[in-house]
Amino acid sequence: MYSFRNDYSEGAHPCVMAALAETNMVQTPGYGTDSYCEETRDLIRKKCAVPNADVHFLVGGTQVNLVSCAAFLRPFEAVISPCTGHPLIHETGALEATGHMVIPVLSENGKLDPERVRALCACHSGEHMVRPRMVYISNSTEIGTAYTKEELVALHNVCKVLDLYLYLDGARLGNGMVTDDSPLTWEDLGETLDAFTIGGTKNGLLFGEALVITNDALKADFRFHMKQRGAILAKGRLLGIQFKAILKDDLYLENAKHANRLAQQMQDGIEALGYSFLIKTPTNQIFPIFPNTLLEKLSAMYAYEIHKPIDAEHTCIRLVTSWATPKDVIPRFLEDLKHLTHQ
Amino acid sequence: MYSFRNDYSEGAHPCVMAALAETNMVQTPGYGTDSYCEETRDLIRKKCAVPNADVHFLVGGTQVNLVSCAAFLRPFEAVISPCTGHPLIHETGALEATGHMVIPVLSENGKLDPERVRALCACHSGEHMVRPRMVYISNSTEIGTAYTKEELVALHNVCKVLDLYLYLDGARLGNGMVTDDSPLTWEDLGETLDAFTIGGTKNGLLFGEALVITNDALKADFRFHMKQRGAILAKGRLLGIQFKAILKDDLYLENAKHANRLAQQMQDGIEALGYSFLIKTPTNQIFPIFPNTLLEKLSAMYAYEIHKPIDAEHTCIRLVTSWATPKDVIPRFLEDLKHLTHQ
Amino acid sequence: MYSFRNDYSEGAHPCVMAALAETNMVQTPGYGTDSYCEETRDLIRKKCAVPNADVHFLVGGTQVNLVSCAAFLRPFEAVISPCTGHPLIHETGALEATGHMVIPVLSENGKLDPERVRALCACHSGEHMVRPRMVYISNSTEIGTAYTKEELVALHNVCKVLDLYLYLDGARLGNGMVTDDSPLTWEDLGETLDAFTIGGTKNGLLFGEALVITNDALKADFRFHMKQRGAILAKGRLLGIQFKAILKDDLYLENAKHANRLAQQMQDGIEALGYSFLIKTPTNQIFPIFPNTLLEKLSAMYAYEIHKPIDAEHTCIRLVTSWATPKDVIPRFLEDLKHLTHQ
Amino acid sequence: MYSFRNDYSEGAHPCVMAALAETNMVQTPGYGTDSYCEETRDLIRKKCAVPNADVHFLVGGTQVNLVSCAAFLRPFEAVISPCTGHPLIHETGALEATGHMVIPVLSENGKLDPERVRALCACHSGEHMVRPRMVYISNSTEIGTAYTKEELVALHNVCKVLDLYLYLDGARLGNGMVTDDSPLTWEDLGETLDAFTIGGTKNGLLFGEALVITNDALKADFRFHMKQRGAILAKGRLLGIQFKAILKDDLYLENAKHANRLAQQMQDGIEALGYSFLIKTPTNQIFPIFPNTLLEKLSAMYAYEIHKPIDAEHTCIRLVTSWATPKDVIPRFLEDLKHLTHQ
Repeated sequence: MYSFRNDYSEGAHPCVMAALAETNMVQTPGYGTDSYCEETRDLIRKKCAVPNADVHFLVGGTQVNLVSCAAFLRPFEAVISPCTGHPLIHETGALEATGHMVIPVLSENGKLDPERVRALCACHSGEHMVRPRMVYISNSTEIGTAYTKEELVALHNVCKVLDLYLYLDGARLGNGMVTDDSPLTWEDLGETLDAFTIGGTKNGLLFGEALVITNDALKADFRFHMKQRGAILAKGRLLGIQFKAILKDDLYLENAKHANRLAQQMQDGIEALGYSFLIKTPTNQIFPIFPNTLLEKLSAMYAYEIHKPIDAEHTCIRLVTSWATPKDVIPRFLEDLKHLTHQ
Repeated sequence: MYSFRNDYSEGAHPCVMAALAETNMVQTPGYGTDSYCEETRDLIRKKCAVPNADVHFLVGGTQVNLVSCAAFLRPFEAVISPCTGHPLIHETGALEATGHMVIPVLSENGKLDPERVRALCACHSGEHMVRPRMVYISNSTEIGTAYTKEELVALHNVCKVLDLYLYLDGARLGNGMVTDDSPLTWEDLGETLDAFTIGGTKNGLLFGEALVITNDALKADFRFHMKQRGAILAKGRLLGIQFKAILKDDLYLENAKHANRLAQQMQDGIEALGYSFLIKTPTNQIFPIFPNTLLEKLSAMYAYEIHKPIDAEHTCIRLVTSWATPKDVIPRFLEDLKHLTHQ
Repeated sequence: MYSFRNDYSEGAHPCVMAALAETNMVQTPGYGTDSYCEETRDLIRKKCAVPNADVHFLVGGTQVNLVSCAAFLRPFEAVISPCTGHPLIHETGALEATGHMVIPVLSENGKLDPERVRALCACHSGEHMVRPRMVYISNSTEIGTAYTKEELVALHNVCKVLDLYLYLDGARLGNGMVTDDSPLTWEDLGETLDAFTIGGTKNGLLFGEALVITNDALKADFRFHMKQRGAILAKGRLLGIQFKAILKDDLYLENAKHANRLAQQMQDGIEALGYSFLIKTPTNQIFPIFPNTLLEKLSAMYAYEIHKPIDAEHTCIRLVTSWATPKDVIPRFLEDLKHLTHQ
Repeated sequence: MYSFRNDYSEGAHPCVMAALAETNMVQTPGYGTDSYCEETRDLIRKKCAVPNADVHFLVGGTQVNLVSCAAFLRPFEAVISPCTGHPLIHETGALEATGHMVIPVLSENGKLDPERVRALCACHSGEHMVRPRMVYISNSTEIGTAYTKEELVALHNVCKVLDLYLYLDGARLGNGMVTDDSPLTWEDLGETLDAFTIGGTKNGLLFGEALVITNDALKADFRFHMKQRGAILAKGRLLGIQFKAILKDDLYLENAKHANRLAQQMQDGIEALGYSFLIKTPTNQIFPIFPNTLLEKLSAMYAYEIHKPIDAEHTCIRLVTSWATPKDVIPRFLEDLKHLTHQ
């Protein structure tokens, strides 16, 4: 049974596996102080055109979010997040466990906009309230939408005015960058964000998120924070080697394009069969709404996650493609869906 | 200039001051292990008809909320609060600083209802999400409304079903108990709540909140938690003596009645002059809406807090009465308001 | 039965009670923003000759220690404390609960010396270890000893060199300042310390510790930290009024002198009867060693705390005097002890 | 230049790499819920003869220590550790960052003994002190020593009496188990410990520590704690696959034997050349003391870590072997050392 459950169902891209195998018996210093990591940091700095950015390699997404929150904020400072943001929904209170409030802002499309950030900050003042300090966004978002460059610039501007840090969780960064209608460049990220992550786990690595810190004010002592939260990998080279393998020839964006293309093909095909969506998305996650009767049969043929019930007879599911999804799976899925539809 | 800013503008009720003066040179053991505290604990247990309740005396409201949260919950467990709840708005992230998420639930009247608690819990499951465990309510609420017995019982029932603790912040407990339409008894509290506080600071004490824990599961080691958060007063007797002074002859409820009565008189008078309210309340906090032009003049005569702007020309203010408000201040205020209205 | 158990067995000095009574019905703003607090802050700044010091009033000693630690340090920064320090022994892990390691340094006399601070820092480096950042000392210490000016200056100097903050817990500050052999002035404190507390609870107030921050780097946003830890008193004026009462005419130091004098008289008398001490101290806490057989009888006549067993037949006890100890109690105690000794 | 710096200088054992390569494109559910993890859990339960043990796979050592501490303890409960313990020295305050005090106990050989545990607990009581609750030990220890079965049983017994949990950090578990003089079996661990880790990172895996919880009281909700601390790996299968590869045919103990054998050979050879040691150890870490003049030359030929200076002319260094150390490196090193010695 083929699984569209997520984009981390397999191991790593063959190129990544090859790089790990090749370097396996080389001796290096630990904790990310090796030359593979150093090279890869340089590569990332160049891509983003931020020559003095700090780059750290961490293992997972929740981990990088919580270490960043602990490092960037004073205890009474808070994070602003769209109400669908990962830290509010799927991190078991990881940011709160570092002592920080995460303030939800209503969002219909998974994105934050400057107006709502401004409104929220306007009603915070004085020592009886937390001080909003960091804006958390993700791209692509938890519901598959993506920011345009104009939207990022607008958020960047409002953050500067309000003395907020703009942090982008890039667990699915590639998918958010290579959309057909509003692609982003690495330089766009370097210019608009105080810090952002380049997600490896969901785009071809065994594991790994690279954190890029462009704002000097956020750089000091970050490795102390990492170590304190158990987030420095002993064999740190594994992160440097993997990211190098996927970034050096733009495999990172290629993988994302592949995933987006297949998901879009699937979205178009589903729409053509007359189904609607919770929201139409331009990335590798799509959210079709199907009759429960159909899902009973579909679930015997494909694995997927239930996103949420819509009404007594319909449910929204999530279908996810990745670098690992074979091209021929999509037409087969659409064919199967057509059959089930016309039964 | 008379201040309606809050109910903690003065020192303590004369009876409380007298009790402190009388006992001043008596030697007692520290940290609330003295006989005054012990007597007062018994008094409270009797009033609430929970003979084996644990009673602790703490200094302030944010303090008692944060210690309770730290003591009652495991790290991944969360608090459910109406979106207007004190911990979400006016405690500078004190509960989050103990590591816990506080989940806001939409509320128009400052109260929680079972339906919304149930809906919130229904969408929480599994280790990727926090586990809602404690329901935070306040009575009277932050916007002056009060729970009926039926409402408390309904919340109690839903909490039992969903394995939630029901915690009531009684910073203004007296005011919430002695409303004309839906008075609550001490026994009502003992029967429906897992833990609740009896607020002294806003009802005649120099300071002090008594925490009553009725649920056996929440009792263990509470004093360790208090000490760890800096919440055991060295001269703990001060809390026992003050609470005894105000509870032994029901001065506590008398003070609250006085405050409610004056606020209601003021609310009626303001309404009679044709003004509207953000919400009509039965307690000692009222929320009239006035033209900004009128407020310019009123603010030179009386002190109050601005609750929030309504539109370009109108503002909602908060007027608070207390045990200390002289009876004759209200007619004078209404007279002054009438003048300003007809100018 | 007279109690030498501690210096917080009674209420407050009569002058303090009078000040509270006089101001009781005055209306003021809350949270320490009133004019009493403001005046008292000025008074303290002048005494210490640090015109731009920040002064905050908190309720208790553990509270002020934990808020300071949370405010002054980044998460990976640690406190250095003598192994007998209050945070290590009697605060139930309050500093660790804010996330910070407290590193014990061996100390025989309750004090820290520069050599040991230097040695400890010498073996800390890199992100795999905490970074020592704040030196915690108390004066008088937990075992009744006191710092000389030279010792404070020496610690101050080593802290400057090693980029450490020097924090003095003054729960018994008066007693540590007015010793016969090495008195300290308020200016001495202002000159040598980055922050220190003026303990009220143990020297005549109902409760209260004033925190004086002289180092500009430690001042920002302190009230946010206070609020977040439940450490802003609603009726903050109570702290301003009490501290003013005791500081304006130097009653603070007079109270401490009274206590020290009586304790020294008692220490001399006990020594004259042939008893030894765990350590001889110049303040209001003394630590005589008595035969257990004698203590059986003494404990029926006086209350005190057991400090620790010395051997199978002897125990060290702690006797504490205070502003409230009547002068005639000491000769009576010595007379009684003489009797018990010669029985 | 060959490096004896540590046992995590290379990638993974070839068998582990092969297992990862073979399974790379298989689709599995995430977060350790796959069948590889499930099988490996069973394998571990069988080895340890604790059929109902809970087994969790985490990425790193500091991570597993901090999650365990957060999960097993209430906020006021503390960890007892030998003064050389990893959490006290090399985890940047990770346990304190979860809010818990770690109490150092003097230890000359890196191990804890029952007498000192008992003495420490004897002086803790009441709510003004933390409550010691978890005993942290490591095997092999941070200075290369190892526990005998008798020592583990004795600690187990004292922990039962004092209501303490016994937790063993097995970052180098294999090396501690296969010593010549006092080997331990998997069953020994299952019988004496409330929880322990099986370290993979230092014994042939790319990364990974397996946590085995044998005490029912510590099992509840552990995955919530893992997630909250960022310690659930998305592609959790990587841990199951790697541990299976190394545990199924006892490669785990073989690797450790290889490492110990080479280190012992080196220790004997160094001793034969007339050098002394900080402490003689039976595992894969040895601590010879060399003249600084010799080290100047040695450091050009081999990489190692400086453990600590001994006097003005001598330094103790650490030499570590591992599964990856080629057999012929040791005679070469000894030959080189002989040369340098006789120059």
